[in-house]
Amino acid sequence: MVAATFPVTTEMGFSCVELGDGTAVARLAFDETNVRPGGIVPGPSIFGLADISLWFAVFTKIGFEPMAVTSDLTIHFLRPAVGSALLARCNLTKLGKRLAHGEIRVWEEDGDPDRLIAFASGAYALPDHNTDDRLPKTQDA
Amino acid sequence: MVAATFPVTTEMGFSCVELGDGTAVARLAFDETNVRPGGIVPGPSIFGLADISLWFAVFTKIGFEPMAVTSDLTIHFLRPAVGSALLARCNLTKLGKRLAHGEIRVWEEDGDPDRLIAFASGAYALPDHNTDDRLPKTQDA
Amino acid sequence: MVAATFPVTTEMGFSCVELGDGTAVARLAFDETNVRPGGIVPGPSIFGLADISLWFAVFTKIGFEPMAVTSDLTIHFLRPAVGSALLARCNLTKLGKRLAHGEIRVWEEDGDPDRLIAFASGAYALPDHNTDDRLPKTQDA
Amino acid sequence: MVAATFPVTTEMGFSCVELGDGTAVARLAFDETNVRPGGIVPGPSIFGLADISLWFAVFTKIGFEPMAVTSDLTIHFLRPAVGSALLARCNLTKLGKRLAHGEIRVWEEDGDPDRLIAFASGAYALPDHNTDDRLPKTQDA
Repeated sequence: MVAATFPVTTEMGFSCVELGDGTAVARLAFDETNVRPGGIVPGPSIFGLADISLWFAVFTKIGFEPMAVTSDLTIHFLRPAVGSALLARCNLTKLGKRLAHGEIRVWEEDGDPDRLIAFASGAYALPDHNTDDRLPKTQDA
Repeated sequence: MVAATFPVTTEMGFSCVELGDGTAVARLAFDETNVRPGGIVPGPSIFGLADISLWFAVFTKIGFEPMAVTSDLTIHFLRPAVGSALLARCNLTKLGKRLAHGEIRVWEEDGDPDRLIAFASGAYALPDHNTDDRLPKTQDA
Repeated sequence: MVAATFPVTTEMGFSCVELGDGTAVARLAFDETNVRPGGIVPGPSIFGLADISLWFAVFTKIGFEPMAVTSDLTIHFLRPAVGSALLARCNLTKLGKRLAHGEIRVWEEDGDPDRLIAFASGAYALPDHNTDDRLPKTQDA
Repeated sequence: MVAATFPVTTEMGFSCVELGDGTAVARLAFDETNVRPGGIVPGPSIFGLADISLWFAVFTKIGFEPMAVTSDLTIHFLRPAVGSALLARCNLTKLGKRLAHGEIRVWEEDGDPDRLIAFASGAYALPDHNTDDRLPKTQDA
């Protein structure tokens, strides 16, 4: 499904390794051809990983929605990522009619999950046809 | 201590209600004279609450440091806050030599802690005299 | 009008000093009773100034809309503000059906406008009744 | 120079098309193999473009500095980018000893420069050996 919707990003090495209720973990494979000298994972790749984990988390709430698009994302790069695949867990913090907001932690697959490589938060804009009926009853606008 | 350092903010109704290792909870009292029509807590007050919770969390790591100043803060307002005191928990996500970064959740004291009013993240700039010796050994730059 | 809508913020010393097409300048008076030791203007006050300048700029496009609320705001504090009134200019960068986005520069009234105290950007959520008819024809969603 | 330092990003289609005093324009080539269905430029590519324009702008002030790394970046996606190369102009808003902050506008090369695709702002962390001597005299910390 992801491969069909986002051929580019999947080609870039992203995959989904866990889905829960309003939570998801995305993975960025380590590929020596896509890193900077010294094996440093580029910031845009880390951004892409955070971004897609938010898309996956939204998916767990509203289902497959290719029209959900990133509205805004803020990322702080906390440490360099060197020589390892990366994991990003997104937890949704709000699901509204128009926007879904989540927070994302990025760490090295080979390392301590509390030793964060990056922290991000942001919102996806949901399409107009995303009606209340499709949203969980416990969520408000 | 807080009152001595931040007379203005304390006067604005902020207090510290919990301190842990790299975590803190700040409280904003509900005061009908400081809210908008309908009892809505103004955004800048919520920002101030998030900001001071981050300062408190930094305090738990490096001690009393009046020279630590906010470098940047991003806040998403998720729902209106109406008629209630607010609580904000900050968890530090990184403590470096120059910057401390944290994430902050804001909720109504009378409400569900998972029903967030706002989500923020940001960084404090630490003063130059904040040497490695004062930092926990488990933290890197 | 502002005083009627935002009595709290106006009480806090904010005023509107310029309105254009998609642009506005807000002012924060310097008041020794509302600053930190040394005359430093608190971060939340600067945030509030940026926030209200964005509200003013939205006003120039869609008219008086008390239901427009801040969706998100990111602020970088670039230098301390000491002993001076502050000005904030917001320029709208996008006006959509659901969101208005702007960027905001804050400087000291007594100082060089290019010597920024803070830089902010963010979005206001526009109410559902904000129809296309009210938006300029040159703007898209 | 850019190609030598960032082989990945250059390979991804980024180039520098203008350098000024504290300002730079970066370009992202349009390449049908790197876009989503319908010719939509992916968000991470736009992020990467904004990020590298900030790096170029920092370069105009402190010279070639491969160790300058992104500290944080906030991006708002304002409209989809479809079928066109993109340009991003970064203007530095602050150059300090530790951090350089800038704002970035992204638009379609084929379109109206005022019709923004994205707006970003953020900071680069400058290495310790970036001494005052290398900074312009008109800039403060």
